[in-house]
Amino acid sequence: MNAAGKEILAGNTRAAARLMRDLDDEIPAAIRTLKHLYRHTGHAYILGVTGAPGSGKSTLVNRITKHLRKRGKSVGVVAIDPTSPYSGGAILGDRIRMQEHTLDEGVFIKSLATRGHLGGLSRSTIDIVNVMDAMGKDIIIIETVGVGQDEVEVVKVAHTNLVLVVPGLGDDIQAIKAGILEIADIFVINKSDRDGADKAKREIETMVSMTSFMEGEWKPPVLSAVAATDDGTVELLKAVDRHREYIFQEGNLSRYRREKARVELVEILKTRLIEKAVSDLDAHGLLDPLLADMANKRKDPYSISEKVVNHSFAFHFLNGGKKKPIKGKGSPR
Amino acid sequence: MNAAGKEILAGNTRAAARLMRDLDDEIPAAIRTLKHLYRHTGHAYILGVTGAPGSGKSTLVNRITKHLRKRGKSVGVVAIDPTSPYSGGAILGDRIRMQEHTLDEGVFIKSLATRGHLGGLSRSTIDIVNVMDAMGKDIIIIETVGVGQDEVEVVKVAHTNLVLVVPGLGDDIQAIKAGILEIADIFVINKSDRDGADKAKREIETMVSMTSFMEGEWKPPVLSAVAATDDGTVELLKAVDRHREYIFQEGNLSRYRREKARVELVEILKTRLIEKAVSDLDAHGLLDPLLADMANKRKDPYSISEKVVNHSFAFHFLNGGKKKPIKGKGSPR
Repeated sequence: MNAAGKEILAGNTRAAARLMRDLDDEIPAAIRTLKHLYRHTGHAYILGVTGAPGSGKSTLVNRITKHLRKRGKSVGVVAIDPTSPYSGGAILGDRIRMQEHTLDEGVFIKSLATRGHLGGLSRSTIDIVNVMDAMGKDIIIIETVGVGQDEVEVVKVAHTNLVLVVPGLGDDIQAIKAGILEIADIFVINKSDRDGADKAKREIETMVSMTSFMEGEWKPPVLSAVAATDDGTVELLKAVDRHREYIFQEGNLSRYRREKARVELVEILKTRLIEKAVSDLDAHGLLDPLLADMANKRKDPYSISEKVVNHSFAFHFLNGGKKKPIKGKGSPR
Repeated sequence: MNAAGKEILAGNTRAAARLMRDLDDEIPAAIRTLKHLYRHTGHAYILGVTGAPGSGKSTLVNRITKHLRKRGKSVGVVAIDPTSPYSGGAILGDRIRMQEHTLDEGVFIKSLATRGHLGGLSRSTIDIVNVMDAMGKDIIIIETVGVGQDEVEVVKVAHTNLVLVVPGLGDDIQAIKAGILEIADIFVINKSDRDGADKAKREIETMVSMTSFMEGEWKPPVLSAVAATDDGTVELLKAVDRHREYIFQEGNLSRYRREKARVELVEILKTRLIEKAVSDLDAHGLLDPLLADMANKRKDPYSISEKVVNHSFAFHFLNGGKKKPIKGKGSPR
């Protein structure tokens, strides 16, 4: 373990912030540190908080953070913020959010902006969660709008996922509710003092009741809250505790850990593969001519992708150099 | 060109719907058809319509479609719907949306649900846009919430991007507005009969005015509309026509075509690479042990990804088999 890694394991906020910045800048030494830190992860409890714009996510996350601090828990917050580097929104967001907790060493808040065109938001989120975990944060909150596919996927690394719904945000919201039913462990009707709160609660309860659950499987409760006035936060945290007991049951925990590993590997590998493919194509002087051929319809992206993919991957090295017989033929497409 | 491809080029809706279904099921013959169809694409005008849940996207898209049909244009609509296959939301959505235009052969509506955990929503969108383009649709509308990174990326294939904003959706909406400024060609304040519409309009105008544009560069206008009553749709379409004139200027069109090719190649290649990597790892019997090693912290996902990536890609085959000297060293990470 290098010096930076040791400082982070000791909980040094400044060292952790520096590592996150260096990971953003893709500095090779930072990724080496992260590799070493990984074995020290797995101790934090990860909480996902997902809700559409205007659903009061940030307010709720601040409330939850305060309650957890009162319990003596250290907290890390990763806010996935769909602003671009262009606007500098994320940095500004960091500053605004930090105000309340700025003098509290037990709270670490990091906002993530949209990354470049090759993706990477999910990988960055995973990186930051792992750094906070290695730092020794007791609870890490991932705050996301949860609409994009990557955002829905990445919160699968959470032990418990809260999904926020607000009354009267229009018809489209119904579609979102349906889409994130799969990831919701606890539903929260926020701003439940508003008109339509009972209707929204009933709708989600109906949706949950129409789902078939296995014997002993967790059934998402539907809670009400007004984050702005702290109403309902305590009950919400009790529900999180109940879900924590559920997820820590023998079979559930190993299933969660495997799923977390899968999401981590897929998201990290996905970004690295496309980065390397594009940079290699460019380094070989192939990218520009290929794009020109596509623009002129002399080549199509499907055939190009097929060729690149068919000439990739040789995995026996992962197996200590021994070649193993291939069990299947892999994806046809 | 095979029989299915010929039918699609002749504008046959049934054949196109069948191909889209087969692409969903990853049937190899379907992807072969798509390869052949690609050279017949590039004739449709692609319009992106992006807005948060509750912003009235679907209503506006229906209005635009009606106006375009009156002008005698054929229309394709791809709605990126964040519901999951789990809820059947997309299929239901298709049915609801189709009602109004169901007897009109000139309109083709396709809703896309979230794909599996390896991504693929962007690739599916591109596939469907290309099929509709090859069918001869004059205008293709991509409707998206535009919050996820993939969703923001994929609308870059559009010639013109409309971004919808609704007054009074809370603070979070500001972040989204900033994030999509990069892709917006035209801003639309929808539901502009609501309180706060003037404020929202001024805010966005201020944001645009704070941006520096090059001489002759397109500056996004900020329009007002009430899609529910069709107010403002005609003016909106006039602005689209003006942007069309702009984008069809010599240098702009070639830049757009190259950018479209880049997005297509990256999105298609990205999905194929991770699919192939995971299926190959699995076929070699490596995936489960790797995930178990990660769960036990004996291996980390960064080192695994690095090994996989370093043993991938050999691009000289794309160059007719000739090996070219490598210009750069590629991405360090």
